[in-house]
Amino acid sequence: MELLYILLIVLAATRLCGEIAERLGQPSLVGEIVGGILLGIAITWFSADLPILRRATENEAFVALTELAIFFLMLLAGIELKPQKLAEAGVKSFAIACGGFFVPLSLGFGLAWFFMPESDLKLAQSLFVGTALAITAIPVAVKILMDLGKLQTETGNLIVSAALFDDVFSLILLAVLLAIIGTGGIPSFGEFASIIGSVAIFFAVTVVIGMYIIPKVGRWISETQSPEFEMSAILLYALGYSYFAELMGLHFILGAFLAGLFFNRTTVDRKVFESVQAKVSGITSGFLAPIFFASIGMHLDLSAITAIPLFVVLLLLVAFGGKMVGAGIPAYWLGVGRNGALAIGVAMSARGAVELIIADIALRGGVFSTPDPAPPIVANLFSAVVIVAVVTTLATPILLRSLLGRGENDEASKKEAEK
Amino acid sequence: MELLYILLIVLAATRLCGEIAERLGQPSLVGEIVGGILLGIAITWFSADLPILRRATENEAFVALTELAIFFLMLLAGIELKPQKLAEAGVKSFAIACGGFFVPLSLGFGLAWFFMPESDLKLAQSLFVGTALAITAIPVAVKILMDLGKLQTETGNLIVSAALFDDVFSLILLAVLLAIIGTGGIPSFGEFASIIGSVAIFFAVTVVIGMYIIPKVGRWISETQSPEFEMSAILLYALGYSYFAELMGLHFILGAFLAGLFFNRTTVDRKVFESVQAKVSGITSGFLAPIFFASIGMHLDLSAITAIPLFVVLLLLVAFGGKMVGAGIPAYWLGVGRNGALAIGVAMSARGAVELIIADIALRGGVFSTPDPAPPIVANLFSAVVIVAVVTTLATPILLRSLLGRGENDEASKKEAEK
Repeated sequence: MELLYILLIVLAATRLCGEIAERLGQPSLVGEIVGGILLGIAITWFSADLPILRRATENEAFVALTELAIFFLMLLAGIELKPQKLAEAGVKSFAIACGGFFVPLSLGFGLAWFFMPESDLKLAQSLFVGTALAITAIPVAVKILMDLGKLQTETGNLIVSAALFDDVFSLILLAVLLAIIGTGGIPSFGEFASIIGSVAIFFAVTVVIGMYIIPKVGRWISETQSPEFEMSAILLYALGYSYFAELMGLHFILGAFLAGLFFNRTTVDRKVFESVQAKVSGITSGFLAPIFFASIGMHLDLSAITAIPLFVVLLLLVAFGGKMVGAGIPAYWLGVGRNGALAIGVAMSARGAVELIIADIALRGGVFSTPDPAPPIVANLFSAVVIVAVVTTLATPILLRSLLGRGENDEASKKEAEK
Repeated sequence: MELLYILLIVLAATRLCGEIAERLGQPSLVGEIVGGILLGIAITWFSADLPILRRATENEAFVALTELAIFFLMLLAGIELKPQKLAEAGVKSFAIACGGFFVPLSLGFGLAWFFMPESDLKLAQSLFVGTALAITAIPVAVKILMDLGKLQTETGNLIVSAALFDDVFSLILLAVLLAIIGTGGIPSFGEFASIIGSVAIFFAVTVVIGMYIIPKVGRWISETQSPEFEMSAILLYALGYSYFAELMGLHFILGAFLAGLFFNRTTVDRKVFESVQAKVSGITSGFLAPIFFASIGMHLDLSAITAIPLFVVLLLLVAFGGKMVGAGIPAYWLGVGRNGALAIGVAMSARGAVELIIADIALRGGVFSTPDPAPPIVANLFSAVVIVAVVTTLATPILLRSLLGRGENDEASKKEAEK
């Protein structure tokens, strides 16, 4: 029952702010994050009057729904994209991903190494900052592109494909980081090879199943007799891949995305595809995604701004600059054009949930509590990283819209067509 | 992550069993409950190998999803039904609901009064058994009718309308029962009047909003610009009514149902209605409802069968007989015909989730622990009531199908039409 109340308030606040954002010409997720920030402020100010909301971000069911939201966002992203287009973007996007990953990683690592005090965890702390700046939040990037109606453009495909590579690199780095937090030392060559091996196995298995088995199963799905079996089938496929990804030491978002990618017009009946696509879109954009974006906003904690202002500003500069230079310049060299290259740099800057997930793992690992007592720079590092996550996620769609303009919003055009 | 694993296993088991049930000509929810029972058995046998699944029914996120399933089931039921038809069925269904409520209530109370040992809680225990037998699980009854393609028939309207009245009576009785468990005494006239007053206020407010405000809001919804705003709008409306129901001391299912009822072709644009209907149906029948029916099956605990077999058999006889006589005979008198009257008695017998919810409340209230040490009849009362819930929920669709035959399953016919 507590959950229904939280959902009522969060959904009302986010959709209202989202609609205002749309009327101002911005994608609705900007409004949804702002709605979450406003909710967070209201909860802090009126915490005595809003005890249930204050507990929302710790409510297990609410947190589970935000994870389900990430799952559905990635699934929807996969469904909306065409695997061939992504594969075509492969070589270009690999170069972009490499630059967009290693430049902010090195800059972030260097910045942290300079500021962090000497301690056993200095290496882990610096690598954490580097990782947090190197990642791209692929679910956020995809939703921004969807809201702007630019997902299925060439730039859109390049961004998503590069973000995917970036994500795989980050997950490998995260595994290394976890090993360092756990043991304090750098993983051995054998451990490193086993991480790479797991990634290779994951992609080999999922791609083979997706290309050779799913088209056969797809035809059978249309012949089932239970109500809404198609919907269950795609969810089961995505849940299976997600679980397999976690078994292989990767994050479940990769599994959900790949499952969506292999569920398309060539593997299933067109009517089935369109009906499932509409239903996944409805539950994602209409219910789960706003909750997820609100939860990003609700996590915002501004204490770092007063405690370590210089570090926060430098971190933000590196967060944007690192991606602009690292991803933008290779893109420009590869002939994307000035505006397109800038757009790619901006889009890769959105960090949203993935940065929060990594920060949360680091928090649980005790990265922010050594040396003891922690100096302000260490004690406020978590807050600083969350600020970067929220600011980059909020600024990306606004900047991207002014760079790319606004295409045919699929949803809006569908609405028009229906009238 | 644990949640994704549980969902994968539960969804796979239920949809597979559901599809087998459909091929055998039974509604899929029969298979889904059987799938849940089989899962429950597998978990008991292999509990050491399946630690995560063993915890599933206590996993907070999983439990929250089953509650969300009830919310969506009731919302979908409301969307599929027409308020005018329900109102037309009003007088007839009120008589059916009265009989179908008071006959099993008295029989259940009498049976328990005869078997329960003397103690402070004898009255509460007897009234608990009476309440558990008097209720009708409206979400289950509705899903059965949907699966059989009989929801929008005259008998379907009568059943749902009568089940609604039954539900309101049960919720009032539950409030009385809670007062008795809490204080040990029967509530005063003032307390009783305040319960009735809350029910009246709830219906007055929701019906007035639904009839006069929703049609105005409905037109505005079509003009919003955010993606999938319609979906959020109906969810917000249903969440608001659900919260209001709980504030008034009623169960949230009434709120979700009424919100669905007032969201229809006359209050919103036809295209918007059909699109939202398809999306709510997809997420409910394709994702949440199977999980919910599995959880009913997973709750089954057979210990009462060996401990108090006579009581279990008598309880089952009263559970079916009470509804057949109590609801069936008034229906027959009102000219429904022999088969229709039998069908109404059978349909009102499904107890599913609502009985489990009441049993859970009683368990937390300590109803099954007095006198201390509890004799077998008291210690196994919870198990006995759960058996009744599962058996009635499982037998109802099978019996109903042989009485009513199988109509045009909306889903199946849509599938055909799409080809």
